[in-house]
Amino acid sequence: MTDVYLEDLHTGLSFTTATYTVSADDVKAFARQFDPQPFHLDEVAAAETFFGGLAASGWHTAAITMRLLVSSEMRPAHGFLGAGVEQLAWPRPVRPGDALRVHWEILETRPSRSRPTQGLARVRMTTLNQNDAPVQTMIASMVVPRRGEA
Amino acid sequence: MTDVYLEDLHTGLSFTTATYTVSADDVKAFARQFDPQPFHLDEVAAAETFFGGLAASGWHTAAITMRLLVSSEMRPAHGFLGAGVEQLAWPRPVRPGDALRVHWEILETRPSRSRPTQGLARVRMTTLNQNDAPVQTMIASMVVPRRGEA
Repeated sequence: MTDVYLEDLHTGLSFTTATYTVSADDVKAFARQFDPQPFHLDEVAAAETFFGGLAASGWHTAAITMRLLVSSEMRPAHGFLGAGVEQLAWPRPVRPGDALRVHWEILETRPSRSRPTQGLARVRMTTLNQNDAPVQTMIASMVVPRRGEA
Repeated sequence: MTDVYLEDLHTGLSFTTATYTVSADDVKAFARQFDPQPFHLDEVAAAETFFGGLAASGWHTAAITMRLLVSSEMRPAHGFLGAGVEQLAWPRPVRPGDALRVHWEILETRPSRSRPTQGLARVRMTTLNQNDAPVQTMIASMVVPRRGEA
């Protein structure tokens, strides 16, 4: 585990997480709890919809993305604290059996004006499937502590 | 249940969903699965963090928001299909016991250029707690079918 501080980050730095394979049961369990729509709940009903088959909720993909980030070897000291998302999209569906990983890249960093012990990192986070095709794109800002201050 | 088509929507139209009360068990169960960080997992550990107490994952708040939208009386025919999010933030934490509801407002609508049977609605969705304070703000675009075409 590497605890990352603002001083460790620079534009262009990138990292790829481990992989998580999504099962049909995962897709349905999340959907029953948070997004109970036919295309996320049932293979037969899903076949007749826009998706043409069972697909994960976008919010499930977002949650899996968070899981992969939080569980990864490299993460901000004090944890992943989102300061806001400026872009989030799901360019293609996540299907049962898809193996997802997250590739992130630092776009820029800056010290906080109001809080000298921390800064912000603006990060592009792309969730890819086993064919290297993006299933989620996101640009978010994270709070990152500065080294030697606390 | 009201099935909504593009023709039913206009700038300024708004709606508020039912309420969902978040329990400490909900917060911890989501965190164990998707966002296992101390401030989402355990009251004692959370007390020493930035949050000063147990708080829901932002992605949990997003998932509850989707649940409230999907379960509401008013929703797009063919379901909630997100075309993308252009802004998403969590201005204050969600705490155990908070009762959340979603207020949404149509910002604009337009027919799709490439698909004559559907259009896009750009929507501001604000998730509020029992004190009417926003815990999540979002601007998203949804795919909405046009009436009389299929």
